[in-house]
Amino acid sequence: MIEEQLGQETASEKETGRLEAFSDGVFAVAITLLVFNLKVPTLGEGSIFQQFAKIFSQDQWISYITFFISLATVLIMWVSHHSMFRLIHKSSSLFMFANGFLLLLVTIVPFTSQLLSENLIKPAGAAGAACAVYAGLFMIANIAYNLLWWSAAYRHHLLKPGVSQSLIKARTRSYLLGFPSYLIAMVLAFWNPFVSIGICSVLWFFWALASYERGPKSRSQQVGQVG
Amino acid sequence: MIEEQLGQETASEKETGRLEAFSDGVFAVAITLLVFNLKVPTLGEGSIFQQFAKIFSQDQWISYITFFISLATVLIMWVSHHSMFRLIHKSSSLFMFANGFLLLLVTIVPFTSQLLSENLIKPAGAAGAACAVYAGLFMIANIAYNLLWWSAAYRHHLLKPGVSQSLIKARTRSYLLGFPSYLIAMVLAFWNPFVSIGICSVLWFFWALASYERGPKSRSQQVGQVG
Amino acid sequence: MIEEQLGQETASEKETGRLEAFSDGVFAVAITLLVFNLKVPTLGEGSIFQQFAKIFSQDQWISYITFFISLATVLIMWVSHHSMFRLIHKSSSLFMFANGFLLLLVTIVPFTSQLLSENLIKPAGAAGAACAVYAGLFMIANIAYNLLWWSAAYRHHLLKPGVSQSLIKARTRSYLLGFPSYLIAMVLAFWNPFVSIGICSVLWFFWALASYERGPKSRSQQVGQVG
Amino acid sequence: MIEEQLGQETASEKETGRLEAFSDGVFAVAITLLVFNLKVPTLGEGSIFQQFAKIFSQDQWISYITFFISLATVLIMWVSHHSMFRLIHKSSSLFMFANGFLLLLVTIVPFTSQLLSENLIKPAGAAGAACAVYAGLFMIANIAYNLLWWSAAYRHHLLKPGVSQSLIKARTRSYLLGFPSYLIAMVLAFWNPFVSIGICSVLWFFWALASYERGPKSRSQQVGQVG
Repeated sequence: MIEEQLGQETASEKETGRLEAFSDGVFAVAITLLVFNLKVPTLGEGSIFQQFAKIFSQDQWISYITFFISLATVLIMWVSHHSMFRLIHKSSSLFMFANGFLLLLVTIVPFTSQLLSENLIKPAGAAGAACAVYAGLFMIANIAYNLLWWSAAYRHHLLKPGVSQSLIKARTRSYLLGFPSYLIAMVLAFWNPFVSIGICSVLWFFWALASYERGPKSRSQQVGQVG
Repeated sequence: MIEEQLGQETASEKETGRLEAFSDGVFAVAITLLVFNLKVPTLGEGSIFQQFAKIFSQDQWISYITFFISLATVLIMWVSHHSMFRLIHKSSSLFMFANGFLLLLVTIVPFTSQLLSENLIKPAGAAGAACAVYAGLFMIANIAYNLLWWSAAYRHHLLKPGVSQSLIKARTRSYLLGFPSYLIAMVLAFWNPFVSIGICSVLWFFWALASYERGPKSRSQQVGQVG
Repeated sequence: MIEEQLGQETASEKETGRLEAFSDGVFAVAITLLVFNLKVPTLGEGSIFQQFAKIFSQDQWISYITFFISLATVLIMWVSHHSMFRLIHKSSSLFMFANGFLLLLVTIVPFTSQLLSENLIKPAGAAGAACAVYAGLFMIANIAYNLLWWSAAYRHHLLKPGVSQSLIKARTRSYLLGFPSYLIAMVLAFWNPFVSIGICSVLWFFWALASYERGPKSRSQQVGQVG
Repeated sequence: MIEEQLGQETASEKETGRLEAFSDGVFAVAITLLVFNLKVPTLGEGSIFQQFAKIFSQDQWISYITFFISLATVLIMWVSHHSMFRLIHKSSSLFMFANGFLLLLVTIVPFTSQLLSENLIKPAGAAGAACAVYAGLFMIANIAYNLLWWSAAYRHHLLKPGVSQSLIKARTRSYLLGFPSYLIAMVLAFWNPFVSIGICSVLWFFWALASYERGPKSRSQQVGQVG
């Protein structure tokens, strides 16, 4: 059938190109919308130092830190996404829907981020609920990553020919790690919101560091992992 | 004329590349703006479970579900758009304006989505009107898809050389299907808003499922259809 | 110098690729932000037809029409931008700043559009001022287009080798036409806002039509002009 | 190892392509969100000239000028980013995180810009604090540029083979220049906000001009620098 030929023919071009471009767009917009979490403080009479005190008040710091953790986490998610797609060669329906599910969750981040930023220094119940929802979203995002990776790597379905079995296993392990980490963060939110949010930050920092640590050892490997 | 040669010459590059990139941008921004439909609930005193009750109250659920249906529908529209453009080889003025018309409608989705989310549990008149407008927009979007496809497929105008007549017919049928479906959803909104919105969800789910069903049977065909 | 070689070498790749991608992004976001011009009407008690009357009240129609004219005009601006860049082969500093100036103006459209939408049915002074600013922005945008085109076409500076002198002249004439048209629209706003805004709509429609008219006659020319 | 081969193989494609596309997205969205700094003035009774007086009142002018300086500065940052990436051949973890840090700062610009626009004509303390924060953000952005450039240029780590040592030195000098300029602007904000903001505008204008000045002399060099 000509249709099948067409399928194969186009498959030799960069087949996932537009899927990546669209995903990049969603990640980029979601990241930039996080700025609406930053409430502009109302300044007024008083010395310049009193105004700085308003710009860097506790309330403002909460929103700056939440903004930073959310942005850093979404950036790391993008790096993961980018890194995964470098090993992928073509797409399937299941793969596209797993990616759509992931984008859905990325889109929600500005919402959970604002919920957190408004409630982190409220009574423990409110702060805990906000933290649990915040960590919970990233936990579900991890499920989306696992689904995405599984739909691509199962039976070497959509991967580039050269991807080794050991790399696949390393990746699978690495994606599975996120789930229990965010689950713990979510559960601890019931006990202490600050510990929960602390874990969310450390997770981001840990992944950033881990990915840098591998860097100097073997350049080409690092390119395959993160670049 | 040199100009004609230039036309042919550039046609051999990926001629619709920038049109796709621009459309991807609009789809990506429209999807991400849907997050503004999600109102951040006001939490306060009380246990963590009372706060969860606020985060997952009926009002909030309405907005989450509306958000989900809108996002899923726009994602499927993007998948359709992507899938159509894989068969297309060059562009024409009519094609570009049909695409512009489609993007106009995609841009409006955050508006109809918010209208729905604010009115779904209001009195039946308000809910019905919101549902009818919501379904009506997708109905008009279907007209835009048909116009886009017709402008490309009429006399094999803008299609890639290898696209078979049977594939064209299958696509034409598939695009025509959306119109009566959303028309029914729109009409039923006058009788029962929840049935109307239920159809909008099922339509999304049905298309997602239909596209997955074809997946395992013949990989290369699926690539041509959805990938 | 190696640096010069590098310049030439990279020039053989698609040199304006990233400039186009960035511009597409700005156009796409600006178009999608126009949706915030559409105020969600407050529905309530009453029959479904009374609710429709609220959704399609005079106030709402004003905002829908303004939204439509703005979106259509920005789409046409994108089509023009895309069409111009198809003839362009490399970039220069002046060219990049002319493009930046154009993007600045595109970014402002959601502002002038909202100004218009809020004031079109207010007293004549308010409506006139809003219309004059609205048309004035598009007039300045036309200056940006002329600057952009001139920086590219002067002495065949940045154009692809095959672009004919007659095509350059036709383009130059076409870009110069926009300035007096929007100037007239701006001046007439002092006398009658509705005539002014009518001209803005007709201009959009006229360009869309003109570009379609050329379509059937010679396909490859049309590809060079609009595609 | 096959994984290493894969790394090298993919490195021969445009390795930083998706990183650039994502960065372009963030820059484009951040620039377009600046439009929310422009408050739509409330017009009413009175002649058209009285309405113009409202549209171009002192308060409005402050917001227009702030919008313009912010947009121009982010545009120049994008030009710099684009220009740097033209010399870059592959990416590393450190490079990606430096780029992420830069995007974080770009994302914050709409916030500092609004802070400035709301406080520039308030009492000196408020205006000074807003200006200091505004200039401070660009100062930190300059650090991000230096980090990005250093991570690429150190030991010719990620640069294209043809990039000369003299070009690297010229670039290094040019990036180091921004830091003291914005530091001065930040410090002067404590003494006189208008001088501080004046420096921020002049810096933008100076860079735009400097980059244009080089233009006519040697085209290919200019292409390597700015195009």
